[in-house]
Amino acid sequence: MSKSRVEMLSDGIFAIAITLLVLTIPPPAHYQHLGHELTNRWPSLAAYAVSFGVIGIMWLNHHSVFGNFARVDRGLFYLNLALLMTIVFLPYPTGVLGEALRRGQGARVAAVAYSVTMTVNAYAWGAVWLYASGRRRLLEPEFPEDRRAGATLAFTVGTILYTLSIGVALLNAYACLAFHGLLAVYYALDPLSRRASRAAAMADPGSP
Amino acid sequence: MSKSRVEMLSDGIFAIAITLLVLTIPPPAHYQHLGHELTNRWPSLAAYAVSFGVIGIMWLNHHSVFGNFARVDRGLFYLNLALLMTIVFLPYPTGVLGEALRRGQGARVAAVAYSVTMTVNAYAWGAVWLYASGRRRLLEPEFPEDRRAGATLAFTVGTILYTLSIGVALLNAYACLAFHGLLAVYYALDPLSRRASRAAAMADPGSP
Amino acid sequence: MSKSRVEMLSDGIFAIAITLLVLTIPPPAHYQHLGHELTNRWPSLAAYAVSFGVIGIMWLNHHSVFGNFARVDRGLFYLNLALLMTIVFLPYPTGVLGEALRRGQGARVAAVAYSVTMTVNAYAWGAVWLYASGRRRLLEPEFPEDRRAGATLAFTVGTILYTLSIGVALLNAYACLAFHGLLAVYYALDPLSRRASRAAAMADPGSP
Amino acid sequence: MSKSRVEMLSDGIFAIAITLLVLTIPPPAHYQHLGHELTNRWPSLAAYAVSFGVIGIMWLNHHSVFGNFARVDRGLFYLNLALLMTIVFLPYPTGVLGEALRRGQGARVAAVAYSVTMTVNAYAWGAVWLYASGRRRLLEPEFPEDRRAGATLAFTVGTILYTLSIGVALLNAYACLAFHGLLAVYYALDPLSRRASRAAAMADPGSP
Repeated sequence: MSKSRVEMLSDGIFAIAITLLVLTIPPPAHYQHLGHELTNRWPSLAAYAVSFGVIGIMWLNHHSVFGNFARVDRGLFYLNLALLMTIVFLPYPTGVLGEALRRGQGARVAAVAYSVTMTVNAYAWGAVWLYASGRRRLLEPEFPEDRRAGATLAFTVGTILYTLSIGVALLNAYACLAFHGLLAVYYALDPLSRRASRAAAMADPGSP
Repeated sequence: MSKSRVEMLSDGIFAIAITLLVLTIPPPAHYQHLGHELTNRWPSLAAYAVSFGVIGIMWLNHHSVFGNFARVDRGLFYLNLALLMTIVFLPYPTGVLGEALRRGQGARVAAVAYSVTMTVNAYAWGAVWLYASGRRRLLEPEFPEDRRAGATLAFTVGTILYTLSIGVALLNAYACLAFHGLLAVYYALDPLSRRASRAAAMADPGSP
Repeated sequence: MSKSRVEMLSDGIFAIAITLLVLTIPPPAHYQHLGHELTNRWPSLAAYAVSFGVIGIMWLNHHSVFGNFARVDRGLFYLNLALLMTIVFLPYPTGVLGEALRRGQGARVAAVAYSVTMTVNAYAWGAVWLYASGRRRLLEPEFPEDRRAGATLAFTVGTILYTLSIGVALLNAYACLAFHGLLAVYYALDPLSRRASRAAAMADPGSP
Repeated sequence: MSKSRVEMLSDGIFAIAITLLVLTIPPPAHYQHLGHELTNRWPSLAAYAVSFGVIGIMWLNHHSVFGNFARVDRGLFYLNLALLMTIVFLPYPTGVLGEALRRGQGARVAAVAYSVTMTVNAYAWGAVWLYASGRRRLLEPEFPEDRRAGATLAFTVGTILYTLSIGVALLNAYACLAFHGLLAVYYALDPLSRRASRAAAMADPGSP
């Protein structure tokens, strides 16, 4: 199985999912007080921005993680497919959360649905990593052994943080959305991952 | 005609069709009892998951099958286009089936529509294979002759199983959805195809 | 400007437009008589199939035509963009035509809208060709001079036939849809184009 | 981080955003006076055409600008993501503006929303450029120093012109749409950028 073709399929699916997000912002119901109608939709806009950031940063991390794999086998393909399924699903809870916040109805339920989606996603990430790195099944030979445990820890912390987001959702939907925004920023700035990609860059010239 | 460009077009269409599936889950009608509204939609979610798996596994098989072709001619292009037309159509019966199951109305009709779509798809797969493998028209020279009959048998069994799914749909819509899920798992685990891809991998180093 | 990147952008837009077509089939309004509801939608399905074929065959021809260009400049980029704009627009009149035929209201108007879109598309094709082939501005040096006039004639005939389809639309909407289906088949079988691609294939080994 | 993969992700997102625009044209509400219904929608069509041109030309400029970058780092990736977020958002204000003009209600508010989106987009372009060109952080070594100030000036003028479009929107929504069309044409014809791409083409043979 060609790794680059699986990466291209993943890239395509990321690109489409991130673009479909705009369809989650409900069009104005009437145009008489359009300014009011549009500013009222700010929670949809906020949810759109958070999910856009989440998917964009995930694309980057997907890129980094797969860069450490020497090849893709059927098992990884199916786990990656499960991961993509949760990403592609994200526009649905994004739309529901934005609309629930605007209406002031069902916001906590919507935030739970959003957090559950993200949690399943985090577990799919963990499964991808554990499958590919376990006994170095698909890892690049250049990948340093001491970084393996660190990465596993990072994925484990990720699943715990996202599971926690379900609790935050039960408390307050706005706090939950902010929490997901902060998690995205954390993953964007994550020094571990940056160190990793620098290490990968150094290892790169050595690869054929 | 460049084979890689036809494969890239197919990949793109697979990626978009799999992503559009999320639009088949109907948004909540009201937000007052949102928890109830969302859990009520589990048949749409189940149909989404089955169709997602179906398209993902088909992408993989498309990849495997085309990997055995030396080139693409106009005839194969048009048959592949017909195949893509049935895949791209899948979101429609997926959405109808999920909604019919939720409403408890028209579920068997919807399951028949889903199964007919999948059956036409199976025939399109058969046509692609028979056209390309007949008199080894487009097969790689490395493709072993004794695997040709086995593959033709596998495609024939596929068309029979999918035709059978129309009968299952007439009995029970839930059973029909489960049947399609099982067929997808069967194609995902199919030892024949795995043996084939392993053989192809072995043949690969010998190709220029 | 990299020709391959313009071709990839075009390919992506073709792939998305062809996949969005499925959204033009209206979902069932009610599920009580679902069989009736779905079979009623056959004009939408027919319009979907015709437009799918049209876009698929255009992708192939786009591929052939651009294969004869040595490079892409800004002028060709903008004409190609205009061409893509008419292709991307096609789902709209496709959806309107299918629905108008089902309702038995406004079918001729809808068929005119469809035909006008296709006519503008044909003129855009003509403009792309005339711009790129005029004084051999962007043609491959290997492209035989005597094939140039033939191709120009073919594009001219295309614009005439599509303009004619507006007349057919005024007579009967079903006939118009069939006419567009036939035109697609004609472009799919077109011996001139097939001869051209064979000639291009022969010329290909000579190119660097 | 692979520059070509970031460019491919961007290309994919451009292609999808430009294709989703067609979904912003509202389908006919009734089919009895379909001719009237469709011709009434000309503002949606005009908004569609302007936004299509805007995104198409931006794709070209994205291509030109990134062609001058030697590589992509995390900072540029996130700024590019912010830029893509505003482009992907464009279908929403496009749809609202077309519908507001048709209804003759809320047109100025809709034009302001469109102009604000474009202004944020212009600032994102400026940020991409300033980040990558500042102290020549990511510029190709071949990029001539004297062209740097000119390009910075062009981006600054762009942000001013787009900020001005908010004022035009407050005066008249049609004028605002025309203004955005003219800005797109200006960016399409922009002699500076054409000179730049010619210079880049000349520099190209010297690059490895």
